[in-house]
Amino acid sequence: MSDPVAGDQLRAFVERIERLEEEKKVISDDIKDVYAEAKGNGFDVKILRKVVSLRKKQPHEREEEEAILDLYLQALGMGPGVGM
Amino acid sequence: MSDPVAGDQLRAFVERIERLEEEKKVISDDIKDVYAEAKGNGFDVKILRKVVSLRKKQPHEREEEEAILDLYLQALGMGPGVGM
Amino acid sequence: MSDPVAGDQLRAFVERIERLEEEKKVISDDIKDVYAEAKGNGFDVKILRKVVSLRKKQPHEREEEEAILDLYLQALGMGPGVGM
Amino acid sequence: MSDPVAGDQLRAFVERIERLEEEKKVISDDIKDVYAEAKGNGFDVKILRKVVSLRKKQPHEREEEEAILDLYLQALGMGPGVGM
Repeated sequence: MSDPVAGDQLRAFVERIERLEEEKKVISDDIKDVYAEAKGNGFDVKILRKVVSLRKKQPHEREEEEAILDLYLQALGMGPGVGM
Repeated sequence: MSDPVAGDQLRAFVERIERLEEEKKVISDDIKDVYAEAKGNGFDVKILRKVVSLRKKQPHEREEEEAILDLYLQALGMGPGVGM
Repeated sequence: MSDPVAGDQLRAFVERIERLEEEKKVISDDIKDVYAEAKGNGFDVKILRKVVSLRKKQPHEREEEEAILDLYLQALGMGPGVGM
Repeated sequence: MSDPVAGDQLRAFVERIERLEEEKKVISDDIKDVYAEAKGNGFDVKILRKVVSLRKKQPHEREEEEAILDLYLQALGMGPGVGM
């Protein structure tokens, strides 16, 4: 067997992956740009990331987690309302 | 030059790294075990990780971040006190 | 000042980020799908990832790294031609 | 119920985790130091990491992966022996 690997097929897969990775890179750069723009407008990027992350959770899920966290922090004498 | 790489020296470096990586692996497993034990005692592992992470910050730093977060969440109509 | 955060501006930033993250997620899923399809056609996914990674390097860069690696492996008695 | 969380128990878990994380940090720093020392002795850190990673695999496993990689690279016209 002179060529046990289907070169054309392999190349097609590799090139599809590379194209998609390029697109993904462009979008990742776009996201960085939006955060940079927000920072330029006075927003705190770290907190903004937190907000984006929090919005992925259901309100009741967030509230429940916050309640347990407050409980733990109080049990440790770390006070309430320090939930981030 | 038949041997441009100092084999003994290289081997010594590699073995030191491997020993340290083994030690690190043991400790990582120990950490997992403590979390598992805490879970077995009714604690919420995700929140426990959050507590450990929060304790690395200074209180004033935590409070400031929490205040900004609450501000952002209120501006988005997501309500206060949902800081995790 | 009753509202120190520009809510509309904040919301606009958050929504732009969320849209971009969704697009990024779709592309990430597409990439996984291509790998799965390649696997279904008999390709080894792990090696395929390696190929994609190698193609990002310049040939001379790859060759130089491979040469140093072979040197190190031989100095450790691990033999040549085991470069992955 | 005035205190639904066993504060002492929680504190004990948190402190055990913190001690272990500190130990882990020390070892991580030690590993970095060894790599830095190796670099100071003329070794290529990136390749050294590769060597350490390769040594975790069985020889036959490495050889098999290398063989498949060479096959794929040849099918793509990227030549043999460029396996890193």
